Amino acid sequence: MDRTSDSLSRTLSALADPTRRAILARLSLGAATVNEIAEPFEISLPSISRHLKVLEGAGLISRGREAQWRPCRLEAAPLRQVDGWLGRYRRFWQGSFDRMDGYLHEITNAPPKGGKQ
Amino acid sequence: MDRTSDSLSRTLSALADPTRRAILARLSLGAATVNEIAEPFEISLPSISRHLKVLEGAGLISRGREAQWRPCRLEAAPLRQVDGWLGRYRRFWQGSFDRMDGYLHEITNAPPKGGKQ
Repeated sequence: MDRTSDSLSRTLSALADPTRRAILARLSLGAATVNEIAEPFEISLPSISRHLKVLEGAGLISRGREAQWRPCRLEAAPLRQVDGWLGRYRRFWQGSFDRMDGYLHEITNAPPKGGKQ
Repeated sequence: MDRTSDSLSRTLSALADPTRRAILARLSLGAATVNEIAEPFEISLPSISRHLKVLEGAGLISRGREAQWRPCRLEAAPLRQVDGWLGRYRRFWQGSFDRMDGYLHEITNAPPKGGKQ
């Protein structure tokens, strides 16, 4: 399977770059134009545009239709998907090992129950 | 900056592959040998070994010293780092927009306070 053929892989791949994460951090404060986004970075506008294209491809940002400005906005849905995926691992750093043991016992001895994440 | 020059980028890049995520899911149930890990997959052992090397490089798994068996174990610390990074975005899908507005007002008008995540 190609590494970006599923949406979670595409999201994680898009996030695996410090510049793209910095762009998302900027957009978490509000919509911004490409020039506004580029301002704090010491890289070229075409470079920023390429990063924005990757973020847009992963659905992490959307761009306005206004011809000249095309403000970029953060789209949090893919991040929520990452958060959901992390859910099953969160127990490794939350709660006690006793609870972890209990969980392991539960999943290896009983069918999954509904209504529980 | 190289995309994998920081540990968070390296982790996210390692996670951006469905086979590697499936390997982590297997290891979340307990340590396993390479053969045990490979069993459910329709890909070659050398392929699995390459995936394990990427996961190990990102600190997501560790491998035992026992010469023949070298069981692999999940190491959750890098996942916790991803969870921490996601923290600033979680408010986009938790709570109300009013609280989001309140937060924006807070961070744009006041210095950060200690004791609060």
